[in-house]
Amino acid sequence: KVIWILLVTILGYASTLPVGDDSICTAEELAKYSIIFTGKWSQTAFPKQYPLYRPPAQWSSMLGVTHSSDYSMWKKNEYASNGVRDFAEKGEAWVLMKEIEEAGQKIQSVHGIFSAPAISSGTGQTSTELEVHSRHPLVSFVVRIVPSPDWFVGIDSLNLCEGDHWMEEVSVDLFPYDAGTDSGFTFSSPNFATIPQDTVTEITCSSPSHPANSFYYPKLKILPPIAQVTMVKLRKNHLGLPAPYFNLPAKSNEIIDSVS
Amino acid sequence: KVIWILLVTILGYASTLPVGDDSICTAEELAKYSIIFTGKWSQTAFPKQYPLYRPPAQWSSMLGVTHSSDYSMWKKNEYASNGVRDFAEKGEAWVLMKEIEEAGQKIQSVHGIFSAPAISSGTGQTSTELEVHSRHPLVSFVVRIVPSPDWFVGIDSLNLCEGDHWMEEVSVDLFPYDAGTDSGFTFSSPNFATIPQDTVTEITCSSPSHPANSFYYPKLKILPPIAQVTMVKLRKNHLGLPAPYFNLPAKSNEIIDSVS
Repeated sequence: KVIWILLVTILGYASTLPVGDDSICTAEELAKYSIIFTGKWSQTAFPKQYPLYRPPAQWSSMLGVTHSSDYSMWKKNEYASNGVRDFAEKGEAWVLMKEIEEAGQKIQSVHGIFSAPAISSGTGQTSTELEVHSRHPLVSFVVRIVPSPDWFVGIDSLNLCEGDHWMEEVSVDLFPYDAGTDSGFTFSSPNFATIPQDTVTEITCSSPSHPANSFYYPKLKILPPIAQVTMVKLRKNHLGLPAPYFNLPAKSNEIIDSVS
Repeated sequence: KVIWILLVTILGYASTLPVGDDSICTAEELAKYSIIFTGKWSQTAFPKQYPLYRPPAQWSSMLGVTHSSDYSMWKKNEYASNGVRDFAEKGEAWVLMKEIEEAGQKIQSVHGIFSAPAISSGTGQTSTELEVHSRHPLVSFVVRIVPSPDWFVGIDSLNLCEGDHWMEEVSVDLFPYDAGTDSGFTFSSPNFATIPQDTVTEITCSSPSHPANSFYYPKLKILPPIAQVTMVKLRKNHLGLPAPYFNLPAKSNEIIDSVS
């Protein structure tokens, strides 16, 4: 039986097959994490058409959800929901929040919503906390690239549970995605709805393969990560802010143990 | 003793004296609330210089904190912290988050931080959850008015504890404040630092008393509320989203009891 579980776990990590890899989490029921988003969208790393004003390069609020495999916020090569479309095109979170709520009510597939403040430059940081549940160990979120037609970065169904325990820390490099709902080619393209809607696609340095595209860098093999997200498991304490919450991004070496 | 508590409670509500009105909360240790922010910044209500583009009227992310009376996020007629200045001027949350963290670590005066996604129009809604503690029953938050020099709406130290119980629901009308750090007069004034820094002041229809000011409406007695915030106590449940979370703003009459 152990081997079977191991196999399913490996399959769950190695592929996008719907193996329901959240069904085998036997870790403690609840775990809290700090989630820190770091923008890496600098003019040095992304010189082409870098938006300097009206508005300058920046990031929307982060909107995220902890959930089971019965829910999906967004998925590569699938169609974006109306909520994800509104968020990716305009930064409007309301429809997406309602979609998440409905999934929570109808199929009990959502544990909680989280959000973090917007970042008013391409390279800042933002942070918040999230809670996962052994039956809802997956994390998804979106952050809109501003300005852009319908481009975003995010995570789709990252499993924080590793069998019988919660991961201590995980960092993921993020790359731009196109929500498939607006045909703009560049950061500041005017609105131009994609009809019929296209699926969510990753934007790479060679795709869309057109020199006008803002991320088209024919001399690169891959784009540098445009952002990064780090999740750190928090110690259990009821009072005060958890120690790793803010210290990680500042790269402090101090050990703070006066919080609980 | 009961009379003494009552008196302190009344004083706490009736005045801004530092009576430490959070020290007498004997309610259950923890309570969760949904907090729903509704923008009421319409062109109809605020026709003067209403921002229609680059950017159109909108609201930043909400950044809030639950705390004891030993912490203050912002206060009318006092100087804004660097964090509040950055947030009010540019929507940058990082410094303010660090200030809150420091207050939590040094003087144990902070229970938690919360944030809600930005709203991309003057009249939308956003929402999140917060947790208060009997020793940290106060709620404060700020939302930046976009565009503006350094204007924001918010709440300063609202006490959700009423003696031995938590309030079920509270709604507050919000009016614009000037952080006192930028001397711009109108929504789209260029940056112009106020030196020396001024205190946080409420902006009314007659103050600043200058016809060029965006909120100067000499024919009005008071401004209409530019936003509203509602906090609703949540039932205790570990799974799924709480019932009142999204239904309140939609003004639904349905009773949803399939959530827990």
